[in-house]
Amino acid sequence: MKTQIELSRAGKISRLVSKIAKQEKIPAKTLAKLVACGQVVIPTNVRRNVEKPCGIGKMLSVKVNANIGTSTEKPSVVDELNKLKMAMRFGADTVMDLSIGGDLKKIRNLILQKSIIPVGTVPIYEAAINAEKRYGNFLKMNRDDILDVISEQAEDGVDFFTLHSGITRKNLNLLAKSKRKLGIVSRGGAILANWMRKNKKENPLYELFDEILKIIKRFDITISLGDGLRPGSVLDATDRPQLSELKLLGHLARRAKKNGVQVMIEGPGHIPINQIKQNVTLEKKYCNGAPFYVLGPLVTDIGVGFDHIVAAIGSSLAAFNGADFLCFVTPAEHLKLPNAEDIKLGIIASRIAAHSADLARGLKSAWQKDKLMSEARKKRNWDKQIQLSLDPLTIKRIRKKTIPKINDVCTMCGRYCSIKLMQKCLKRA
Amino acid sequence: MKTQIELSRAGKISRLVSKIAKQEKIPAKTLAKLVACGQVVIPTNVRRNVEKPCGIGKMLSVKVNANIGTSTEKPSVVDELNKLKMAMRFGADTVMDLSIGGDLKKIRNLILQKSIIPVGTVPIYEAAINAEKRYGNFLKMNRDDILDVISEQAEDGVDFFTLHSGITRKNLNLLAKSKRKLGIVSRGGAILANWMRKNKKENPLYELFDEILKIIKRFDITISLGDGLRPGSVLDATDRPQLSELKLLGHLARRAKKNGVQVMIEGPGHIPINQIKQNVTLEKKYCNGAPFYVLGPLVTDIGVGFDHIVAAIGSSLAAFNGADFLCFVTPAEHLKLPNAEDIKLGIIASRIAAHSADLARGLKSAWQKDKLMSEARKKRNWDKQIQLSLDPLTIKRIRKKTIPKINDVCTMCGRYCSIKLMQKCLKRA
Repeated sequence: MKTQIELSRAGKISRLVSKIAKQEKIPAKTLAKLVACGQVVIPTNVRRNVEKPCGIGKMLSVKVNANIGTSTEKPSVVDELNKLKMAMRFGADTVMDLSIGGDLKKIRNLILQKSIIPVGTVPIYEAAINAEKRYGNFLKMNRDDILDVISEQAEDGVDFFTLHSGITRKNLNLLAKSKRKLGIVSRGGAILANWMRKNKKENPLYELFDEILKIIKRFDITISLGDGLRPGSVLDATDRPQLSELKLLGHLARRAKKNGVQVMIEGPGHIPINQIKQNVTLEKKYCNGAPFYVLGPLVTDIGVGFDHIVAAIGSSLAAFNGADFLCFVTPAEHLKLPNAEDIKLGIIASRIAAHSADLARGLKSAWQKDKLMSEARKKRNWDKQIQLSLDPLTIKRIRKKTIPKINDVCTMCGRYCSIKLMQKCLKRA
Repeated sequence: MKTQIELSRAGKISRLVSKIAKQEKIPAKTLAKLVACGQVVIPTNVRRNVEKPCGIGKMLSVKVNANIGTSTEKPSVVDELNKLKMAMRFGADTVMDLSIGGDLKKIRNLILQKSIIPVGTVPIYEAAINAEKRYGNFLKMNRDDILDVISEQAEDGVDFFTLHSGITRKNLNLLAKSKRKLGIVSRGGAILANWMRKNKKENPLYELFDEILKIIKRFDITISLGDGLRPGSVLDATDRPQLSELKLLGHLARRAKKNGVQVMIEGPGHIPINQIKQNVTLEKKYCNGAPFYVLGPLVTDIGVGFDHIVAAIGSSLAAFNGADFLCFVTPAEHLKLPNAEDIKLGIIASRIAAHSADLARGLKSAWQKDKLMSEARKKRNWDKQIQLSLDPLTIKRIRKKTIPKINDVCTMCGRYCSIKLMQKCLKRA
């Protein structure tokens, strides 16, 4: 079997490339070239036929990922499936199952079964949790435990894996010497760092990288190289540990591509507005233009309860400057496990960021949406405005409750609606 | 009596300049110079002693305005006073009373009485509404009606006036020839354009500008030159009518400053991300560095119901590029009159934008807040995180409901909290 990268390099147009090219309205040959050189990835798994696949990277619309998954507290399969539904309904392009509580395999397989979009996971979570069950402590996890989980999740049909392969002993030493406020804020990163310190060994996801590539390649899974050293405070942004890890991820990305495995790079984190462009530029430089998958970024640390808004600012700016893939952030960030409503708000905020970046990047289909909305607004066609909105049911409900006496305007301006006044004005002229 | 500008030009440090300089932690002499040259304004009215005044402009922290005010539908004084309370509680620096329904004078005076922050209005609203009552039609409003309202509102103690003086016949002709999707979306602009077309006369706020300056100067009120031709769709952004009006506002600003009257410039509107920097740069160029008061900007038209998020993106980017004053946008924008909850969400979104721009602009006091939050996060000091948050009561309520078994972490990661794992990890090392 040849992977998407290998097929594209051989000048073939795969079924997936052809489908995505149509979706994105770009020539299939152009897309195949971008896949071949690793500037676009198409998360997939030969074991699963994703109904709604997507391409991520150069020349394509900005994509959005939603994180779902149980916590160690009261894990509920029903809740997670509801979150999945919510994520798909409000336009997530991919979803990640980050479960760490309950029957992980069962939850994952249900999500894989119900999801019409690509599904990603972080295998080190399950490896750690299995080790807790098996040995009473995740620090006793061994290499085979990790490889076994990767194989099993690959067989199950997961489309992309986050691998925190960049937290090496060298990078941990840099971290120890640095003046970081918030050390490691990546769950996978913290698990690995603890394991490495306890066992005095190198990061297994780094040492076993070639073996992992072999497993992954058989399923044509995409790697998302995790940034375990991402800053968790704007005070830590763009520091040495972060950039040292990013450079290493660039090297690993080259190795993955060389081996025919698609790869994208995860990015920060907490970054103030004035450093966002630099962060995107460095990723593209160090990682040979591999798609950049940013987690926010959050442009301030003080937004607890409203971090979906904080992330919308950072995401739109990152995407405007070239980031390709936005991991949503919900209002529950830094506070609690998100519920279905949080998922909805997170997706909507992230979709706004992606869409506004698409506009700024000149994407024609994005401009068409704003044109239609402005036309509906001019005509005071409320049904059309509702239909074109990001949450039609909610907007319809609000509108229904607040229709004014003059029923084509809204309760903001009433009879002084500027659009209506100008319609008369222009007619008279 | 000398105005703030005149005092500053004479090398005097006014009581207000001294107070604001302390607030902003900059030398009073520096601030006086900025006021003298019109790069900073301090909205004030000799008839009113604002408890919490603010400075707006160069070298100062980014400020936020909240719009409140009745509609023609069921106007309620109680509702508006609640909105005022909400705006002040969540950190608005100024408030504008945009009432167009009910007893306008009574509502305004109650707001002026209860507000500890500067209050702005748009006098053309009351002039039009008075004319409706007096003559049955606002198109019959005459010049004296307008000047009388300005005088009366000045006597009442209003601190800043929005004057749409830039909608001239020339600019309206430019608009008629343009291919705009959404004509005029400014309420004041639409009232004036209709009056001008009907009466075949020049804009009275333009023709009477010098007379208005005389009235305003006696009270030391600040002018906010309104952008009646702001784009109401991203498809109309940065077009000829908008820029022609902006140039004219620059000329009028010079005239105001020459006459000792403080002035700021209102800005768009709907602007895609890639045009925001250009819009700020042009304002600073055309208007000699006068403070820029942006209405959003909204970076896409499709966000109805979530326009506070859309505006947070535009506002933070505008402020990062030099805008000084952000008019909040609520989730009710394009949909209905905002209620108190909408006001709260609008202010919080706008405060996030202002703060993230302050960080990016290197404001020390802003960085201090993020430092404290990160330290509280590291220590998992929840009381401190709640206290430092933008909405402590709400965050406290959510936290209380979701305290996990291990009570110093949150339900997101539970026992796999990266911060807690790393604390142990570093201790062991």
